[in-house]
This record gives sequence, structure tokens and C-alpha cells, in this order.
Amino acid sequence: MDLNTHKERKFDIIAIGRACIDLNAVEYNRPMEETMTFSKYVGGSPANIAIGASKLGLHAGFIGKIPDDQHGRFISSYMNQVGVNTDGMVVDTEGHKVGLAFTEIKSPEECSILMYRDHVADLYLQPNEVDEAYIKEARLLLVSGTALAKSPSREAILKAIQLARKNDCLVAFELDYRPYTWVSEEETAIYYSLIAELADIVIGTRDEYDMMEGVSGGSNEATIKHLFLHHAKLIVIKHGASGSQAYTKDGEVYRAGVYKTNVLKTFGAGDSYASAFLYALFTNKGVETALKYGSASASIVISKHSSSDAMPTSQEIEALIEAQK
Amino acid sequence: MDLNTHKERKFDIIAIGRACIDLNAVEYNRPMEETMTFSKYVGGSPANIAIGASKLGLHAGFIGKIPDDQHGRFISSYMNQVGVNTDGMVVDTEGHKVGLAFTEIKSPEECSILMYRDHVADLYLQPNEVDEAYIKEARLLLVSGTALAKSPSREAILKAIQLARKNDCLVAFELDYRPYTWVSEEETAIYYSLIAELADIVIGTRDEYDMMEGVSGGSNEATIKHLFLHHAKLIVIKHGASGSQAYTKDGEVYRAGVYKTNVLKTFGAGDSYASAFLYALFTNKGVETALKYGSASASIVISKHSSSDAMPTSQEIEALIEAQK
Amino acid sequence: MDLNTHKERKFDIIAIGRACIDLNAVEYNRPMEETMTFSKYVGGSPANIAIGASKLGLHAGFIGKIPDDQHGRFISSYMNQVGVNTDGMVVDTEGHKVGLAFTEIKSPEECSILMYRDHVADLYLQPNEVDEAYIKEARLLLVSGTALAKSPSREAILKAIQLARKNDCLVAFELDYRPYTWVSEEETAIYYSLIAELADIVIGTRDEYDMMEGVSGGSNEATIKHLFLHHAKLIVIKHGASGSQAYTKDGEVYRAGVYKTNVLKTFGAGDSYASAFLYALFTNKGVETALKYGSASASIVISKHSSSDAMPTSQEIEALIEAQK
Amino acid sequence: MDLNTHKERKFDIIAIGRACIDLNAVEYNRPMEETMTFSKYVGGSPANIAIGASKLGLHAGFIGKIPDDQHGRFISSYMNQVGVNTDGMVVDTEGHKVGLAFTEIKSPEECSILMYRDHVADLYLQPNEVDEAYIKEARLLLVSGTALAKSPSREAILKAIQLARKNDCLVAFELDYRPYTWVSEEETAIYYSLIAELADIVIGTRDEYDMMEGVSGGSNEATIKHLFLHHAKLIVIKHGASGSQAYTKDGEVYRAGVYKTNVLKTFGAGDSYASAFLYALFTNKGVETALKYGSASASIVISKHSSSDAMPTSQEIEALIEAQK
Repeated sequence: MDLNTHKERKFDIIAIGRACIDLNAVEYNRPMEETMTFSKYVGGSPANIAIGASKLGLHAGFIGKIPDDQHGRFISSYMNQVGVNTDGMVVDTEGHKVGLAFTEIKSPEECSILMYRDHVADLYLQPNEVDEAYIKEARLLLVSGTALAKSPSREAILKAIQLARKNDCLVAFELDYRPYTWVSEEETAIYYSLIAELADIVIGTRDEYDMMEGVSGGSNEATIKHLFLHHAKLIVIKHGASGSQAYTKDGEVYRAGVYKTNVLKTFGAGDSYASAFLYALFTNKGVETALKYGSASASIVISKHSSSDAMPTSQEIEALIEAQK
Repeated sequence: MDLNTHKERKFDIIAIGRACIDLNAVEYNRPMEETMTFSKYVGGSPANIAIGASKLGLHAGFIGKIPDDQHGRFISSYMNQVGVNTDGMVVDTEGHKVGLAFTEIKSPEECSILMYRDHVADLYLQPNEVDEAYIKEARLLLVSGTALAKSPSREAILKAIQLARKNDCLVAFELDYRPYTWVSEEETAIYYSLIAELADIVIGTRDEYDMMEGVSGGSNEATIKHLFLHHAKLIVIKHGASGSQAYTKDGEVYRAGVYKTNVLKTFGAGDSYASAFLYALFTNKGVETALKYGSASASIVISKHSSSDAMPTSQEIEALIEAQK
Repeated sequence: MDLNTHKERKFDIIAIGRACIDLNAVEYNRPMEETMTFSKYVGGSPANIAIGASKLGLHAGFIGKIPDDQHGRFISSYMNQVGVNTDGMVVDTEGHKVGLAFTEIKSPEECSILMYRDHVADLYLQPNEVDEAYIKEARLLLVSGTALAKSPSREAILKAIQLARKNDCLVAFELDYRPYTWVSEEETAIYYSLIAELADIVIGTRDEYDMMEGVSGGSNEATIKHLFLHHAKLIVIKHGASGSQAYTKDGEVYRAGVYKTNVLKTFGAGDSYASAFLYALFTNKGVETALKYGSASASIVISKHSSSDAMPTSQEIEALIEAQK
Repeated sequence: MDLNTHKERKFDIIAIGRACIDLNAVEYNRPMEETMTFSKYVGGSPANIAIGASKLGLHAGFIGKIPDDQHGRFISSYMNQVGVNTDGMVVDTEGHKVGLAFTEIKSPEECSILMYRDHVADLYLQPNEVDEAYIKEARLLLVSGTALAKSPSREAILKAIQLARKNDCLVAFELDYRPYTWVSEEETAIYYSLIAELADIVIGTRDEYDMMEGVSGGSNEATIKHLFLHHAKLIVIKHGASGSQAYTKDGEVYRAGVYKTNVLKTFGAGDSYASAFLYALFTNKGVETALKYGSASASIVISKHSSSDAMPTSQEIEALIEAQK
């Protein structure tokens, strides 16, 4: 997997998909019904990954759709502030709102989320709003699975991938499966298979691969055997507390464990993993170290209150890796 | 206008329509983009009116629709806690969410609201979910205009009014016009006219009556002349800072001014006015005093942080009236 | 019931609602699956009534919505040809089609209909497409129930009725209940009650009144007692083969039987009844004779192949009445 | 291109997509507005192809969705009668109707069509209604482009293709572009590219390939260069009156002209071409002869009144080829 191509391009990574608002419970250890105050953060898997990548020092851009309202303007302004380029962000003019995720923090194991995802702006990104010139400036396009859940966002993603491949831009697919936006598991499986077969890098949990394959208790071997028949060159499969594996098309296998931490809540883990993993690849640290970076970054984020604002610097990641060597 | 009928009934007032969540800016004097924390309250005009009426000592019930999620359960539990009977509340089983209103408090004059009202549960109340036995127990049914904005809630309201009239229960119509839920002003005018012609008591601002009549700068005389041809017996028209007027079918006219206060924000004024006005009518204080009660109650609520939680007691209202006599 | 008012107006009757296409089986006595050829006619209850009225010599106009396609142009051109003014006909520009009704003629008792009524143009008539100046030229507005089944047509009807009442134009309501367009019987009952309470003349079958009242086996006495509390002045209730009754607000009751004929199919009966009944009223023949006209006209139409094209002249009606005196 | 595989399978070809009703003008040489009678035939590109293939002697099956109404039952019964297996036909239970195409026959050059395709049953085929066991019995799956226009039919097609590839069943893609069902040309291009890249055989007109590529005046060379990078092994490009070309992955090119005939109307040409072309391939006549078969079959159908019922036998095709040698 060579990530040293196209170093002349303006962006290491452009993420495409949803940017929304997390409203995290200020009061801990209680159900949301009894939570009376919420703090506002930028959220959404691809937005978090772009923010995480930017905080680590990569050049990151974003393609998405937000309304010109108070929440939309907050998202843009926060992303710009942490260095994410938002030239690919389209303004919704049809009255769609930013998605919301209210989170409760009952205990480290119980953190339910209440989603407002009905007719949200990000799912109304149109294929003709994806700009070929913007994608041409990127070395890698990061696609997150939730953007495939509905038309026209689904077609915007298909268009972006066709443009990426036409312009020699790598495609990374973060499965990011959120059941609430999908019509059925069958439909999810159809589109996940389609996109995974078109991607260069695929990252997900074992459960997400199982959903894509329509199986339960699937094996990594079957997964990589199928995907390596297509475009994939690097596949990451995460197994929760048991750590994660990376497989390359030329047959190498890498493994990493997890880093201990004081877990506050579980959300944000996947996004911080992906941003740190890709950062390590782009900085030529090798796949094995990249797995460690992903893992350490996830541990840091789940010990903190937010997903986006808590994205670590490389110093913090390295310190944790060092501390638990 | 005789409100002494059917004293044997269990409820003085049953309100029908939306019960939702207000998320009020914790930080003042800044635009919402810069507000980082929000406090949660029950909101929605008819819910606020039922809550206000209950806090004043009336027997209040509620007909509405909420999901069985964290926000829905909070609403029920808050309403029960302040004494509102929720036997008429139906649980949504189709995945609709509670409506949300994010408020900013920039200055007393500028308080914009960001609404999440797309496919909200309250607008999915079905006509067959309105229980005749429940309405039969009420002396007055309070309808707020927003519930007319969409089917099937619109038909549920029409059904409730047909049942109220069949069972000798008075109908009060609070115009409560919120442009964002309506398809067009023309459609609003059609349904507002239809319901105002069926109601016994109509309460609204001069602007709301203008919208209903499709005019600008309409006159109170024209409004009452038309409505008194139909069922209306008592019409209240509010003129903002210039005070309000009440007209009865037998030709009496009453006027009241407004009470001075430290305005924090403007929302909640109409709901607190309606609940205190109806409370005074039910307790036989007469129309003139009822206008003062409405006015004083509104002044109290706009000086406080929420709409529902800030609903005053009769002692507070009387103290303010006394203080500014 | 005085229909002698406003003789100066251009139109005796303006019908509002659907104008569509009937595709009647050319081959008789077989199920539609085996029918290989279909003849095309204009159809739709209010269109048929306007056509029938015009053929009898009344001045008739029409308010509806049709696309500018081959079926839409056929409808306009046929209506004009038989003398119906179509100045109130609006052209659909959003791609909605004309409704279709395929009929089979298996036997006089069995004539099933296959409807294409999904997103048809007539149900997209907007309230702002109803022209007050046009309604002002009519002595009577004929509303058929099916147009109430969906928004925005429903609101267009409500608007037309508000304009008719404002301009002293009588309102006749033909119940014309077609289950397939309605969401539920409960919703039908709500709107049928609402409109019947606003109409001057109400015409329907006993079954249709039952549906409106949410009862089965309802009595004419209950129906007229309720409706005469509102605006109705003349109520016609049809009992199929047992004939029909007309009730006036001042307490008169009229009855008529049915005329024998060779029944080919049953559809079109109600429309031909309504047009001949109204024609007789407008020509001062009195309610009793009007019932006979309605009945004879229905007998003529059900013996012929179409609904619209078969509408009789007054000579044919009078000949049948004379023949079976 | 080896079509000799899996001769043990029950079906040579299974077509998937729409089966609907054509209502063809009985009266010729006039606009549809003046056509008063229509004849009923089975229609829809993949249904016509299955019917054509069956009449030529292939074993054909069909996957689609029709309601259990008079039109749906006619379709099934006609297909069975001409030998098409309909075990893959699913009954719609949600009230969707069969699509309709009214055709006028003004002159050989002018034959406009009026489509009823809004919410038609065929576009509601669900992915879980596509049966793997049925596809497993086929040597070739024929997909027509129109079925990609809307969800869930779109996903049913994607699922069918994934199942075909999993079970070593060839995929033929007939572009069959009908603008009226699609949201935008951009969306069409996205899905046409996606499916053409997954298919073994692609058949279309030059205009259809241009639409897929988002170009005008595109070249066959560019088209085949791109598609042969993916799965395609055989590509047919039709140029109307100038004849058609076939390209194979191993570099062969074949050409054929057109056969003279008395053109009555133009529709049905593409479907008859595809069925005869595939028949010739399956019977090992070679690509060159297959082009002739396609061309001759098209000439026969456009000289007759229907598309499906007019599908020729191999004797008729051979006679025409012989006659114009």
C-alpha cells in the first residue's frame, strides 16, 4: 500500500458525508430523561475523521451539506478553526436541518443515543454538487457508510468514487454502520458490498463486515478473500476489546491490542481510530504502527466528553503508546 | 359567556396538540452559534397552556402524541409532575420524534428560534386516537392552530371539535400561528377560518387574525362582525405592547394594558396569557379581570428563562397586578 | 328552496373536481382480463354532471386540473364541444396525469372498475387556482365528495365553498363516495360532515350518508334532523331500486320510484341523476318532478355504454317519464 | 463469448424488470386525442424480450412484480401462454398498479407514447423478493435499464446481479433508457456506468451510451475501451438506420445493416432486436449472424401493431434475412 503518491496535491484526505451536531449530556451517570443540560459539539463520522486528521497535522478537506442556520454555521466555523478546508461544503437551500445526536452518559457501558436524522441536510447532497476539481486535489477520499443510506446522498457518494478513481485518488471506506438511517439490512448489505468492492482501503468492525456479508460470526479470511478479488489493497478489521487486524493484498497480516483508559463513553472510538490510522500511513510509519495509532487514539477519545473536540494530537497518542509499551 | 356549565366534569380544560422540547440557551447575550450549552424544558403552545392552567389550580388534561423515547418520557413525566393528566397522550410507534425548539437569547428584542419540526410525532396524531370518552369529561377543549398544519393531526383536531360540540364541551381556539409548519398562507387562512367559525372562544394577536383573513392592517370590528355570525361568543385580540381587547357576542368590549417587566426573551408570552385568561374565566373573575390575568402572566413568563417551567401561580399574578395597579 | 336568484349570472352551475378518462370494455359479458379493446370517454362525477347539465340546456362551467397531454386535451375539447365552459380548468405543469377508470361489463350486476387514481392531476388543484371572479358568475357550485380525499384538492374545495358563500352562490354537495382515494372511513366521515354542514343542497345514497355518519342502517330522519341544524335547505337521499326521497328544511317530503330499463352497467347512474335533478329545479319544475327527472335520467344512462356521452336530453327524459306514467 | 456453459440449467434466460400494458391506438394516422379505441397488449422491455425469446424457442423466465388485478392477471396469463415461466413474478400487495403505455400511430415517423408510470408495481420489487434459487437455474440474467430508475427496484436489480455473479450466471444489460422514470441524467449516468461495468454483455443505442457517459457524439472506441477494462466481453452498439456493431473483448468487430420493411410504428424495435440477438448466440449462430437476427426481428416488429404479440418466430426471421440477402 503506497501512500506516497501525489504528494503535490493540496489535501492528504478529503472526507465526504455527514457533519452534524452532538448534544452531549452535561450531567453524568443518569438516564437522558433526567439530564437537564446538553453541550454542543460537531459530530458525524466523516467530519470527526477530518477534524482528527487535521489536528494530527494532515491537510484535510470536507464535502458535505449543511443549512445556513445557527447549527450549520457553527459546524463550518468549528471545522475551519481546527484547520479543515470546507470549500466542498454545500449550503442546503431546501429547508433541511443538521442532524442531531443527543447522548446520555449513564455509565461507561451504557450510553444510549437519541438521533434526529429525519430529512437531514447531509443526506440531500446531490451528485452534481460533488466537484471534480476539488476531488482532484486529494490523495485520498474517505467515504463513510452512513452516507449511502439514502438518495441523493447515495448517488453523490457513487459519483465521488467514480471521480476519485478517474483522477487516481485513493478511496477509503469506513463502514460506519448506523442502523437507524437504513431501510433494511438487505439494502445495507447491497450497497456496502458494492462500495467495498470499489475501495482501496476498507476499515470496519467484525460486526460491520458481518452485516455487509449477511452472515453472523463471519471469518476475516472469507472477508479478505472476497475483497482482494476486487480493488482493495488494505483491509482493517476491528474486534473491540480484542484489538484489530490489518491485511494487505500481498498477504501480510498485522495485529494490535487496545490501550487501557478510564472509559467515559464509547462513541467516537471508530472515528478517532480511522483518523490516527490514516495519519500514521500518510507519515510512513507502516501498517503495524498505524494500528497502534488508531488504537491509542480511540482510547483517548472514549475517556473524554466529546468525539470531535477530544481528538488527540500526535504527542498525546505517542505518549499513550509509550506509557503502555 | 357562561363557563359555569358542567362543573361535574373531571377536567376544566383539555388541551390538544403538540408537546415538545425547548432547548434554551444557557449563555445569554450571544448568537446561538456561540451558545455552547442548552437547558431542556417541556414546550409547545397547548402543552404550555395545560401546564400553566394546572399550576394555577385548574384541572387540566392533554391529548397529544409522543414517542416512547427519552424526550417523550421526559415530557409525560414533567406534565404529570405539575398535575396535568396525560391519559389522552398517545404513544407514537412509527419512529416519529418529539419536536425541538433551540432558542438563543441575544437580547430582549432578538431571540431567534431554530425549529426541528419535520415529521414530528405530534403531527401524526390520528383522528381515531382521539377518545370521545376523554373529551366528554372536559368543560373546554383548547385547540392551538399549529396542530392544523398537517394531516393526520389536522383531522384529529377536526374530530376532536366534532366530538366536543356533540358533547356540549366548549371549544377555545388559540391561533398560535407558526409559519414554518404550513405549506402556504392561503392554506393557513382556509383552516383558521374554518376552525374560528366553529369555536366558542377565539384568542390571537391582531397579526394572526390578519393572516386568517388574508388582509394586512385588518380591523377588530370586521373580525368580530364576521365571527359573531358563527359560533363565537368571546373573542380576544392582542395588540402587543398596546394591550389586548375582549369582545363578547352581546356587544361588550373590554380592554387591558400590559405589565412592565425585565424582558429576558419574548417566547412563551401567548401561552401564559391564554392559561391565565382561561383560569380567570373559570374562576368567575369576569372578562375584564381575565384580560389582566392574561397580561400579567405573560409579563412574568417573558422575564424568565423557560416557557413551561416559568408558568406563574395565581399569587404571583395577583401580586404583579396589585403592584402595578 | 329558491333557485330563482341571480338569473343574471353567466352560469347556472359550475362543477368543481375531477374530469378524467373512462376506458369502457368494448366486448361485453366477459371479465376485463379477457377484454381486448377499450373505448375512451370523458368521465369523473363532476365532469359528468356538468356535461349532463349542459346537454339538458343549463349554462355549465367547470373548475378542475388536467395536464397538457393527449388525454387532457381530449377532455377539454370534448367538454367544450358539448357546451361546458372550461375557463376554470387549470393546466397541470408538474407531470400529473389524468385519472383513468377501466370498466368491464361482465353482466348488468357485475361491472368492476379498475382505477388509476395515484397522483392524478385533479387532486393537485391548488386553492389559489380557484378564481373568485369565476365563482361569482355562478348561481350554484357543485362539489363532489371525491375531491375532498387529498390535499391540495381538499383545500381548493374548501376555498371554493368559502368563495361561493361569500358571493351568494348556492353550494350543492354530491357525496360521490369512492373508497379507493381515501385514507380511512374515519377521515371521509370528518370531511363529509364538515362539507355537508356547509352546503345548501346535499345529494347522496343512504349508504353514503351512513358512511358520513359513521353508522350502518342509519335513518333519514336522523340525517335530516342533524343537517337542517346547519345550512342545508334541501336533502336528497337515494335508496337504489327502492327510489329516492327529497326533504326540505320547511318540512316537506317528496318521493319517487325508479324507471324500468335494460341495464347494461350500473356506473354513471348518480351523475345523470344529479344533473337532471338540478336541471329540473333550475327550470322551476318543483322538487317532486325533479326527483322523477333524476330517476329517469339515471335509467337512461345505465342502459348505455358510457356515462358522459350517454347523458340524455330533456326530450328523452320526458319520453321515459311519459312512457312509464 | 462462450454461451455454451451451464446447458443443464432450466432457463436460457431470465429477464428482470417491468411487465406492463400497452394500449395501442386501433385507429391509425391520427393524434391520440382523436383515437377513440385502444387494443391491449403485454408490454415493457424485459417482458417483451422474454416473450420474444420464448417464441423463438429459448427457455425463458421472468422476475417482476404485478398486482393481483385484472391487468396483472392478464400479464401473467399471456406470458404463460407463450411459454414464459413466471415463477419469479411477485404479487404486489400494497396497491401499486401495472404501468400503462398509450400509443398513438400518427405516421411511421410520429408515434408518441403517453406513459402511466407513477408508483407502478414493477418499481416496487424488493431485493428480498429476488430468489437466489431461481437465478441459479438461469444461464443468463437480462437486466433492462429502466428498472434501475427507482428504489427498491434498483436494489432488487443490484441484488439479482450480485446473485447472478455469485452463481456463475451471465449478466446482459439492455440499456433501455426511458427518460420519464429518471430523476436526472446525472443519476442515470451513475447507475448505467455502475451496471455496465458489472455486466458481461451490454446492448444499447449510441445515444444511450452517450447518456451513460455524459457526452454527446461519443465514439464506440472510447466506450469499448472503458467497458473492456471491467467485466464486459461483448458490446453491441446500435446506430438506427445505419445498422449496428458488436465488439468482443478479444478485439473482434462485427457489423450489420438493417432490413427494409413497411414501418407502422417504431416502438418494440429494441426489444425484438435483443431477444433475437440472444437467441442466435444461444443457438451458436455466431455474433455476425446474431446481429442479423436482431436486425431482422426489429424490422418485423415495427411493421406490426404490437410489440409483444408481434414477436417473430425464427422461420419469419430467417425468411426476411433470406429475402434481403
